[in-house]
Amino acid sequence: MSASRDIDSLIDMMARLPGLGPRSARRAVLQMIRKRELLLTPLADLMHQVAVTVRECERCGNLGSDRLCDICANEKRANSELCVVEDVADLWAMERGGSFRGRYHVLGGTLSALDAVGPDELRIPKLVQRIEDEGISEVILALNATVDGQTTAHYIADQLEGRVRLTSLAQGVPIGGELDYLDDGTITAALRARKDI
Amino acid sequence: MSASRDIDSLIDMMARLPGLGPRSARRAVLQMIRKRELLLTPLADLMHQVAVTVRECERCGNLGSDRLCDICANEKRANSELCVVEDVADLWAMERGGSFRGRYHVLGGTLSALDAVGPDELRIPKLVQRIEDEGISEVILALNATVDGQTTAHYIADQLEGRVRLTSLAQGVPIGGELDYLDDGTITAALRARKDI
Repeated sequence: MSASRDIDSLIDMMARLPGLGPRSARRAVLQMIRKRELLLTPLADLMHQVAVTVRECERCGNLGSDRLCDICANEKRANSELCVVEDVADLWAMERGGSFRGRYHVLGGTLSALDAVGPDELRIPKLVQRIEDEGISEVILALNATVDGQTTAHYIADQLEGRVRLTSLAQGVPIGGELDYLDDGTITAALRARKDI
Repeated sequence: MSASRDIDSLIDMMARLPGLGPRSARRAVLQMIRKRELLLTPLADLMHQVAVTVRECERCGNLGSDRLCDICANEKRANSELCVVEDVADLWAMERGGSFRGRYHVLGGTLSALDAVGPDELRIPKLVQRIEDEGISEVILALNATVDGQTTAHYIADQLEGRVRLTSLAQGVPIGGELDYLDDGTITAALRARKDI
């Protein structure tokens, strides 16, 4: 490459972001340089801002700019329902759905023997503590339908059994999904959980 | 979304980069926040650096950190061959090829009646000037094989005819390319330009 060393370093670093490779990083950097005032400078400022202000919520592990995140600080949300998710991306996905009005607990990953992630590396002790302290009546385990996700869900269910109502997200055909494109497991799950019309 | 306002703004702005949509921008931002010291802060610093230092080369239009870019400033490169490209991305692509040792001229786009881009909006007058001033003996038109690219090539060829040797990149089967996946135009061009073995 024969651009300046700064451009090369910027491209290398952008290429480390998920979803970007060397080629798209080059395109993105050129676009930013073309729109210096509109894109490059504001983006740099925002990144600095986020690096300085954003922190994990002390209670649930969500991201925010205060000791408690916006959801934990929001008094209108139901204290009785707690939704357990793997990471912040999942919390955002649930919030985009827009129908859950309770609180969250972000584990920060899943149990994994392979990666030596045990309960103490996740926010599981903190979760058990919250069940005791906050008068929660239902815990919704919204973990991914992967092996690690389901292992983690079982472990948490074991820990909390008898203390609280435990539920998990329904499995079945996605809205707008076509049967022909679904995997066998999903179809079997949807059939097993069939409902009267 | 219920993250902080800064995170939301950062996601919105990242999503404007080519190759990133809202979903991949969210993933990228989460990854950056997770790797704050390794990714977010250095990236912000580099962007500031690039925004301040990077400028267009006065002679050829390439990007660099000085009045002349590294290629124009490099005395080892041949003065006799000038490669005309559409934009800096194309120059980078040519340099990755690594076999061209002459100089470049970046037009900054292509002629386009639809977008009201005439010769004076591009670096075409400057190109004509360079041919007169710099003792260039061959101009290689490395423009994209699109309608606008070829229109621009024809216009430049008209301007420079008789003053300098004009060449263009060969068209044919890409290295490693499979005939079955090539479009008809490329196959026709490759057949027409066939060579003795």
